[in-house]
Amino acid sequence: MQYSVRLLDLEAGGKYIVVMCVDDARTLGVISNDRLMLNSNGTAVVAILNTSEVFPRGVLGMYKEIGEYLDVEEGDPIDVEPAERPESLLHIRSKIMGEKLMPKHIDAIVEDVVQRHLSSIELSSFVTALQIHGTNMEEIEALSRSMIKWGKTIDFGRTPICDKHSIGGVPGDKTTMIVVPIIAAAGYTIPKSSSRAITSPAGTADRMEAICPVNLRLDEIIEVVNDIGACIVWGGALDLAPADDLFIQVEYPLSIDPLLLPSIMSKKKAMGSTHVVVDIPTGREAKIKTMEEAQQLAINFIELGNRLEMKIRCAVTEGEQPIGYCIGPSLEAREALKTLAGSGPPDVVDKATSIAGILLEMVGEENGQARAMEMLTSGKAEAKMREIIGAQGGDPDVKPEDLAVGDERLDVRAVRDGRVLWLKNRSIAQIARAVGTPNTKCAGIELGVKLGDEVKEGDILFSVYTDSLRKLGQAEELLENMEPIIVGNRIGEKMIMMKISESTTPGSERYIIDR
Amino acid sequence: MQYSVRLLDLEAGGKYIVVMCVDDARTLGVISNDRLMLNSNGTAVVAILNTSEVFPRGVLGMYKEIGEYLDVEEGDPIDVEPAERPESLLHIRSKIMGEKLMPKHIDAIVEDVVQRHLSSIELSSFVTALQIHGTNMEEIEALSRSMIKWGKTIDFGRTPICDKHSIGGVPGDKTTMIVVPIIAAAGYTIPKSSSRAITSPAGTADRMEAICPVNLRLDEIIEVVNDIGACIVWGGALDLAPADDLFIQVEYPLSIDPLLLPSIMSKKKAMGSTHVVVDIPTGREAKIKTMEEAQQLAINFIELGNRLEMKIRCAVTEGEQPIGYCIGPSLEAREALKTLAGSGPPDVVDKATSIAGILLEMVGEENGQARAMEMLTSGKAEAKMREIIGAQGGDPDVKPEDLAVGDERLDVRAVRDGRVLWLKNRSIAQIARAVGTPNTKCAGIELGVKLGDEVKEGDILFSVYTDSLRKLGQAEELLENMEPIIVGNRIGEKMIMMKISESTTPGSERYIIDR
Repeated sequence: MQYSVRLLDLEAGGKYIVVMCVDDARTLGVISNDRLMLNSNGTAVVAILNTSEVFPRGVLGMYKEIGEYLDVEEGDPIDVEPAERPESLLHIRSKIMGEKLMPKHIDAIVEDVVQRHLSSIELSSFVTALQIHGTNMEEIEALSRSMIKWGKTIDFGRTPICDKHSIGGVPGDKTTMIVVPIIAAAGYTIPKSSSRAITSPAGTADRMEAICPVNLRLDEIIEVVNDIGACIVWGGALDLAPADDLFIQVEYPLSIDPLLLPSIMSKKKAMGSTHVVVDIPTGREAKIKTMEEAQQLAINFIELGNRLEMKIRCAVTEGEQPIGYCIGPSLEAREALKTLAGSGPPDVVDKATSIAGILLEMVGEENGQARAMEMLTSGKAEAKMREIIGAQGGDPDVKPEDLAVGDERLDVRAVRDGRVLWLKNRSIAQIARAVGTPNTKCAGIELGVKLGDEVKEGDILFSVYTDSLRKLGQAEELLENMEPIIVGNRIGEKMIMMKISESTTPGSERYIIDR
Repeated sequence: MQYSVRLLDLEAGGKYIVVMCVDDARTLGVISNDRLMLNSNGTAVVAILNTSEVFPRGVLGMYKEIGEYLDVEEGDPIDVEPAERPESLLHIRSKIMGEKLMPKHIDAIVEDVVQRHLSSIELSSFVTALQIHGTNMEEIEALSRSMIKWGKTIDFGRTPICDKHSIGGVPGDKTTMIVVPIIAAAGYTIPKSSSRAITSPAGTADRMEAICPVNLRLDEIIEVVNDIGACIVWGGALDLAPADDLFIQVEYPLSIDPLLLPSIMSKKKAMGSTHVVVDIPTGREAKIKTMEEAQQLAINFIELGNRLEMKIRCAVTEGEQPIGYCIGPSLEAREALKTLAGSGPPDVVDKATSIAGILLEMVGEENGQARAMEMLTSGKAEAKMREIIGAQGGDPDVKPEDLAVGDERLDVRAVRDGRVLWLKNRSIAQIARAVGTPNTKCAGIELGVKLGDEVKEGDILFSVYTDSLRKLGQAEELLENMEPIIVGNRIGEKMIMMKISESTTPGSERYIIDR
């Protein structure tokens, strides 16, 4: 039947959604969430129907994405027929029923995800089923391969291509900003695409953005990397493994991530990486909580790497407290620049040179960490970082103090003498979010102490920075009910970690993987 | 922060959805699918955010539902703050993780469903988790109680209140239209709310609507039932257990229904029913396929009934072929009227009087089926049906032939002599759908034969009716690749039920419960 196009001034999160009135839908024999086959000037495409009580008859509303795909204008005629439900729905249903999926079935699902043929309801059901039933290595491999296949890939025309990845969950982790210039200074290629924070105070893209642009196009990335061997860019708009961006929309609200392995590894493979170190921070308030979990995850990364022809090594790292002293985009970028200039905190230096060292050994160097340290202390890593900053469009001579930090400041001080017994990652992250990170780049927290440090009454435990008194007030409010840093006489003195009563709401685990 | 309202000419499927541009969302520190607290003239409400690349800054788009709830106009100022994620999300996550939910947690979820605080993604994940992990009787009871609590209930001020329910899955099942007048003619109250077809050729509401209006308001229903002891109406807009209408939007695309028991029983309880017979048609192409499944379901219905203080009996019924000869709203309504007038097919008569008989025995009568048959043969049931038709606004003197049946007709004839070996429910339903049922009331199928009947070459196996040659053509197209009625020499002659090759797409089970 023929309808008249009405263009809606709205997007549908990348999906192809059309709207018609309930009566028109009844006439076609379809209901909301059924599929329609649209035909306009020889271009045919399947869209998902939403029905409306208030739409006029004979009019087909189009969200931006489908309107642009079909290149139609207001009032254009368009031919509409009911379409078959995509076959991939049957496979999603099989997964719900607990069956293992075959590679060709997974491929059909990923294709339909990327082609926007599945609704949020269907995607959510699939992701939930993956979470509950789990995935075996065959499924993980097939998911990875399909996610690579249905997206762009980069070929830098050289080998090895180094990379590192942290699964995240610890505040203040600026390791990538030290590792990348070390590896590149040692003469290896390391094109690093990174993510923005979703639930944490800063992702690597947010940190790097405090210094220079990170929104590079694919061709710009290739140029920068061909020139200087490295980049630190935002990977979100590169269309590498685009299925993942659609999966994550569903994973985020429920804080689940059954696609952790395929998600990370498909993006690495699409980037052309051949040698990758995966950092698995482990701690009671980190994303991964036990050594057993960490080891199992590491084994799976390595096995998946083998299957996808990538060399993978994993590092289980200390995740009980923030890395370094700074949390928040600008503060962390400052600390990274200082570390490259030779005055970094010992944990940042050790973590970065250890991870860089593993990478260097993977590509054939000996005494990896010593070699990494040499790049750092000689200033070669800093020089390389300044090349990267310049190549990405920033000021190569930037100094740490050039990066603005908020004028509004709140100092939290020790109310007694003692030793730092506990430093709560999650409370720190929550306060940093309350004052505006990651969007307010100049907001964040600077720790005055770390685990085990001795403090005197009145010493600054940490300082909170932001750009408005309103935001600072939100942090103060939070601090009335939390004690992010616990000071006691000696370890073992305060044994109660949490009190639970009838009215306690169990804490939501809000870690979503850093992709 | 303050925004200016833009009213969108679109609905959001009952949910409270607002739209703002990505930059505004970043400033607020939220992303798509997060919650916002809206405040307008002292009315506060939580809405779900969708972000848009194309929206201007400072503007908050509102879908119909939320705009109407807040009673705002274009350009009105509105105060917007990030809102906490609802606590129910934690409970949904617990269910995903395989935990059993406590009644108070289920109640929080159902409340948030009814208050429109959950997005489609979250609802879908919950329903999928229920499907995969299953629900124990405590959870089923809690779900039922909460679904009743968060909706309207009816009190007819008398007892017993009889009811019947079929879980559906067999075409042509017009039993309800015979059972209701039998029970009412015997002097009992039976206010029947029924559903429209979603995936089948007709629901009871569609059948009844071929004769008289079924869209009665709650107060009209109470009046009709107080007057004449019965009604047969559409239950979809009565706001009884409204959570269910939101769950079903999610269940439908995936053809799953983990909420079968709470869904049916909460609507019965909200209607005030005290004595209910549940019909469980069982057959290889019905919704329930084995006797074991049917028995387990029946036991669960009875147990749930006990917990909700309703008396339940179940009937496992023959589901291997359609009930009676007619499929499609008008054709079925005709057959129901003929049955009430004394000339019904034996299977319709037996099924209706058996079910009515069980109900009569439940409320204390003896020899239930005989008593039901007496109501039928004496014409009392027909007279009662005509009262119901009149009370609902139809013509009480309607004759079967007054109900229009489509002029376009296709006869499918036997190509050999023999016996009817198989009559495929699903193929029959598919053809009926292809010619327009349930929306085209005059469309449908009349069977010429039933299982076991002897046929001669050239005999009519079935006739297809509809109102346009185009629709008839769609049936002809389908018939090229299917044989809904199989004729052979003797049972056992055709042993192959289905052929499967590499390219076979497994059949999708498209049965969704009739609620």
